[in-house]
Amino acid sequence: MNSLNVASITKPETRGPVVNGVPTGQLMEVIDSIGQDSGNAQFQFRLNNHWIGGSINRSRMDDLFANGREDRHDQPFELDADEPRLVAGEDTAPTPVEYVLHALASCLTTTMVYHASVQGIAIESVESHVEGDIDVRGFFGLSDEVRKGFNQVRVRMQVKSEAGAEQLRELAMYSAVYDIVSNSLPVDVVIEKV
Amino acid sequence: MNSLNVASITKPETRGPVVNGVPTGQLMEVIDSIGQDSGNAQFQFRLNNHWIGGSINRSRMDDLFANGREDRHDQPFELDADEPRLVAGEDTAPTPVEYVLHALASCLTTTMVYHASVQGIAIESVESHVEGDIDVRGFFGLSDEVRKGFNQVRVRMQVKSEAGAEQLRELAMYSAVYDIVSNSLPVDVVIEKV
Repeated sequence: MNSLNVASITKPETRGPVVNGVPTGQLMEVIDSIGQDSGNAQFQFRLNNHWIGGSINRSRMDDLFANGREDRHDQPFELDADEPRLVAGEDTAPTPVEYVLHALASCLTTTMVYHASVQGIAIESVESHVEGDIDVRGFFGLSDEVRKGFNQVRVRMQVKSEAGAEQLRELAMYSAVYDIVSNSLPVDVVIEKV
Repeated sequence: MNSLNVASITKPETRGPVVNGVPTGQLMEVIDSIGQDSGNAQFQFRLNNHWIGGSINRSRMDDLFANGREDRHDQPFELDADEPRLVAGEDTAPTPVEYVLHALASCLTTTMVYHASVQGIAIESVESHVEGDIDVRGFFGLSDEVRKGFNQVRVRMQVKSEAGAEQLRELAMYSAVYDIVSNSLPVDVVIEKV
């Protein structure tokens, strides 16, 4: 089954309509393979990060596990993170918390577009504005009662589509990052001295 | 007080030792200003995202609210998101969930380095490997019982430092993104038809 998927991916144009720029035939094949065997639903995303110095560090993403097998990106991706000058950074890259907001906006958008596409719902445009409020007394250790991360995130999405706002919201709510950010999640952090 | 901070930021080299590449005098001034007035602890990060087509969208980060006043990055940052080819993407940029892992690794690293620096603890190197497991039956709507995002995230940090692993872990646990990902958070999503 995996070899069938791999072969089909090279010719997305031959398998079903492209809706909103999404090759729905290709997407349905992956969804079908997952429905037939839950082993194909197991994905793992990975990265390596190294500290460059001061406020700057860099992540590299290359391989992943997808649809039940090892896979890799067409090319490795590198992302830097930095801090604003106000908090002793060099402002060469977005902050870690801005990356969270980007992950959220991008996932809500892609999720809405993907689910609309397989249902044949046309979407013309999606624009989002995202705000995250943070009281940095928690991060800086000045108060045990203030949480360290955002205390509130707001997303306003402006969508041009034939579908209604409530239906579009239902589609967006399948977002993986919305789930990650809004709900609790086990995060295991192990520190090793080298 | 704000004008004093702004003036001091232009000359970080004049105010205290640089530890691990972090100008601790500058950082302590910000922390002091927050300790004196909790209004200075209120930060807001923002971005605008727009859908480009299919699996691709782009965020732009420019202004922010920091230390009780409007601020902006030295230059706007733009980030794209895409999906792997296997799930009907074009693989031109990291996926939204990979951005979450980058946010987590980078925040844990910066947090450990910043807190170590103000305590005078030298750190020589930090390398992290992060994995996030996801069962995509939730995302694709194939099962109501499977969550849509990661079900488990693992971070292994390898640190070269004079401090012990347990102390380094305590420092890293001030991370804003660790809090955001591991704990629940109110995320308000509003969809407007345009």
